[in-house]
Amino acid sequence: MPRYKLTLEYDGGGFVGWQRQENGLSIQEAVENAVHRFCGEHVHVYSAGRTDSGVHALAMAAHLDLETSWPVKTIRDALNFHLRPAPISILSVELAADDFHARFSCVRRAYEYRIINRRAPLALDRGRAWRVAVRLDAEAMHDAAQVLVGRHDFTTFRSAKCQSASPVKSVEEISVMRLAEDIFIRCSARSFLHNQVRSFAGSLAEVGKGKWRARELKAALEAKDRAACGPVAPGEGLYFLRADY
Amino acid sequence: MPRYKLTLEYDGGGFVGWQRQENGLSIQEAVENAVHRFCGEHVHVYSAGRTDSGVHALAMAAHLDLETSWPVKTIRDALNFHLRPAPISILSVELAADDFHARFSCVRRAYEYRIINRRAPLALDRGRAWRVAVRLDAEAMHDAAQVLVGRHDFTTFRSAKCQSASPVKSVEEISVMRLAEDIFIRCSARSFLHNQVRSFAGSLAEVGKGKWRARELKAALEAKDRAACGPVAPGEGLYFLRADY
Repeated sequence: MPRYKLTLEYDGGGFVGWQRQENGLSIQEAVENAVHRFCGEHVHVYSAGRTDSGVHALAMAAHLDLETSWPVKTIRDALNFHLRPAPISILSVELAADDFHARFSCVRRAYEYRIINRRAPLALDRGRAWRVAVRLDAEAMHDAAQVLVGRHDFTTFRSAKCQSASPVKSVEEISVMRLAEDIFIRCSARSFLHNQVRSFAGSLAEVGKGKWRARELKAALEAKDRAACGPVAPGEGLYFLRADY
Repeated sequence: MPRYKLTLEYDGGGFVGWQRQENGLSIQEAVENAVHRFCGEHVHVYSAGRTDSGVHALAMAAHLDLETSWPVKTIRDALNFHLRPAPISILSVELAADDFHARFSCVRRAYEYRIINRRAPLALDRGRAWRVAVRLDAEAMHDAAQVLVGRHDFTTFRSAKCQSASPVKSVEEISVMRLAEDIFIRCSARSFLHNQVRSFAGSLAEVGKGKWRARELKAALEAKDRAACGPVAPGEGLYFLRADY
């Protein structure tokens, strides 16, 4: 029974998120339905990250098992055909080892949070970024963000709905970079808590506005208290960038 | 009677183009309606370029006259409020000289045509770029494109519907650049013929595929015959970048 690894791009805007849910169409369901239309098999598709509603992916990793073996390009093109018109694209399909698991084998996940820092509303990037009208100091955000790097109890930056067994995670890297009016927050870790990157982005925006300094961000982290978090940034600015194995 | 210059960003996807038409909503009509809702005045909004249906703008220039004088930031914020939910954003408003004309005072217009060169369909950039599945040689496209620079009769690259008095235009600069799977064609001129940049993009794609060499592009130009043009690239990959005065 061959196992295939998929790499997907999607616009999370019209979906309830990655994971199959009763209240609307998920990316997972759309892909599983496309597999069924392609070859008649009912499969479960596992992903590296279970993104929330509105969250996008530039290169999500996932895997599935099929009864029948197919050329990987056939699977890619057939799934893309059957996914239409959903804004989900299978970038590539590879044959994977039997013990490869998109979620459990993943050793590093990378996310990007995109802020557009301007007064005018978004036209071309609507639903693709968080517009912040107040001028943000991206350098101050970058400097302060370094207090989040390393192994910490991230209870402050974790959604109440988070199902992770432990709030302790290791953030490998976080950077904040400005390019004209775009601000990119990149963050990588072996794994993340629910809403962790959006909680970072919202709290870092407080730093960017000058409401918080690095010391307030550090105090929020050390409080280990959800109430100490800044506002959670909206899902539409978040992109799943990459899964490493 | 003060004259104001507007700078606009828009997603042309849902519109019939810039210019007011009977068969659907235009950017012009949406902006004129927003002005009316803001201050009750019926104005005509003139733009530097009359983009086609599906064509986007990162910074279109336009002007209008109002009976009453208002702070420029008030106009910007009020128009943005009244434009909702249309994907049109007024980036800035400036007071302009009485003889400023967005169309006739413009000395240089710049467009960008965006190709995404990959097999997989577009998810995040659907409606924002032209996907070309066959591998394109961007360097060959850039080199060949240089035959289009200068003052020429561009009949080959002009829509049958073009209303310009003369097919002779001066292309100041054209460049083709690849960044990973994105290919950007940038072109500037004092003014353009109808469908000129999309005709360039479609013909340059023929070069990128290896179907044409620079000499075939030159022959197409010298034919001064619309039938010699390559396929016209779709509107959704085209962006009005900038108007210089």
